[in-house]
Amino acid sequence: MKTPLSERLGIKYPIIQAGMVWTSGWKLAVASARAGALGLIGAGSMKPELLREHIRNAKATEVAKTIGVNIPLIRGDVDELVKVTLEEGIRIIFTSAGSPKVHAQKFKDAGCFLAHVVASVTHAKKAEEAGCDAVIAEGFEAGGHNGIDEITTLCLVPQVVDAVKIPVIAAGGIADGRQMLAALALGAQAVQIGTRFAATIESSSHQNYKQAVVDAEDNATILTLKKIAPVRLKKNVFALEALSAQMRGASKEEEIQLLAKKREMLGIFEGDTAQGELEMGQSSGLIKDILSAQEVVKRLIAEYESAKERINGL
Amino acid sequence: MKTPLSERLGIKYPIIQAGMVWTSGWKLAVASARAGALGLIGAGSMKPELLREHIRNAKATEVAKTIGVNIPLIRGDVDELVKVTLEEGIRIIFTSAGSPKVHAQKFKDAGCFLAHVVASVTHAKKAEEAGCDAVIAEGFEAGGHNGIDEITTLCLVPQVVDAVKIPVIAAGGIADGRQMLAALALGAQAVQIGTRFAATIESSSHQNYKQAVVDAEDNATILTLKKIAPVRLKKNVFALEALSAQMRGASKEEEIQLLAKKREMLGIFEGDTAQGELEMGQSSGLIKDILSAQEVVKRLIAEYESAKERINGL
Repeated sequence: MKTPLSERLGIKYPIIQAGMVWTSGWKLAVASARAGALGLIGAGSMKPELLREHIRNAKATEVAKTIGVNIPLIRGDVDELVKVTLEEGIRIIFTSAGSPKVHAQKFKDAGCFLAHVVASVTHAKKAEEAGCDAVIAEGFEAGGHNGIDEITTLCLVPQVVDAVKIPVIAAGGIADGRQMLAALALGAQAVQIGTRFAATIESSSHQNYKQAVVDAEDNATILTLKKIAPVRLKKNVFALEALSAQMRGASKEEEIQLLAKKREMLGIFEGDTAQGELEMGQSSGLIKDILSAQEVVKRLIAEYESAKERINGL
Repeated sequence: MKTPLSERLGIKYPIIQAGMVWTSGWKLAVASARAGALGLIGAGSMKPELLREHIRNAKATEVAKTIGVNIPLIRGDVDELVKVTLEEGIRIIFTSAGSPKVHAQKFKDAGCFLAHVVASVTHAKKAEEAGCDAVIAEGFEAGGHNGIDEITTLCLVPQVVDAVKIPVIAAGGIADGRQMLAALALGAQAVQIGTRFAATIESSSHQNYKQAVVDAEDNATILTLKKIAPVRLKKNVFALEALSAQMRGASKEEEIQLLAKKREMLGIFEGDTAQGELEMGQSSGLIKDILSAQEVVKRLIAEYESAKERINGL
């Protein structure tokens, strides 16, 4: 199961473990890479020096070549994160939350593979123009921060595939091998998977968070805080409060006050399942157990092959 | 390309032309059936006697057996619609917008095939318990009236497939053959396609509406009027007014007043692209031309086959 993109990235399977906040440290990235996927370290919840430590630990393993870093471009200290990432020899960069234009040249000069997360055709074209080597087309069902146009993965991926010449990675809502086959049917050359990896043994998220993913049903999440920046969360005390504010038309200022500080850390890393932000995708409804990254990849491939066989038998 | 469901329905392809308001009269249903799909007459915008006329016209053709009727169960005169449908010999029934429980027995007694539209796992299980022969799992990206849980087709379909024993039909956001393959990869036994057929030559919608579909880009639609009943519309003067009301926290009463009467007819049938409700799915971004139903089906199959070949070559 190879695509031009998986070959270029040197990965056995066209699977990318998303670089998420408070979950994707070097341990998860290395476990994913060992399983045949691309492992991404999530810089979003790391200070530059902590990121350096995570990169060094990952780089010291036999899978150093299939480790990348996700950098959210809205970070105040983004220049430092970029500097550390390049200094430590990372050459696979995934950027999100912002325009890739400002930093693209630095990455290209260093010989990096650069991919950027987009949620609309317009942003996909801009990423291509900025020199990105691939785009991640991420749909409305994705966990965490999300686009404003609310375009779903099923509708977004084929439109982005038709609009750009660079490879497209499908993201948002993907947790099993049937969905992986669906994403590749839409024209994606790989899938980026978040929540399924966030709930693995090697994820640095709190056990309570992992259990909250496993307990989630199909309708467990909502997209809220739309006046600040839309984010998909599991419904808990905090998320329902945010939803209620949204329904009564609360202002951006009220949303900012309600959100306060460090709620992602509180929910995902510290395990406060009532007041923390439990970022997860709609795919959480499909996740029934906490597995190793190795087992996740193994099941994805088995489910993919079985779905393909089913399709070929129709 | 056969599935147990397509064989049971006696259709050449596992494609169902959705029974929509102001678009799906007997002409569209017959054209779709002639192309090898199941053709549904949409009772939602018809008085009982007009529905009778449409059924009779369709029944007089050589494709009478692959014609069904969609009945929205919230209609005040639903008993009349059901009576006319059964009297005129229709034995394929698709119900939506309401609980199938009340009317299921009548349909079963008449020997009908009964399918019900659901937007969550819970409602799918209820439909199965009520005796339905299939469920249509319709995602957030679908045009027109929509579920409250905002679950996307990519996430909803596999969860419903896992939760019920009856066949699942995928709906919401599907306009091309890549997406049809994706839906079948998820475990669906057929696809129900709305907007793509609403913009065909044989659709009774206004030319302005069809052109509005063709002109739509990826981010052209929004889900709004959430306090009455969520509906996906193309952004126009009216839809943006409804969105603005939603953002400022307008009450249900205000939404009802804003919606007023007959906006679906105004937009879809009379072609008022500013003040009417232009119900369409996110798939509108993929629709670039007004085709015959025959050509729509032909392209779906060609695109499906080409995507399957691509997948098998990976």
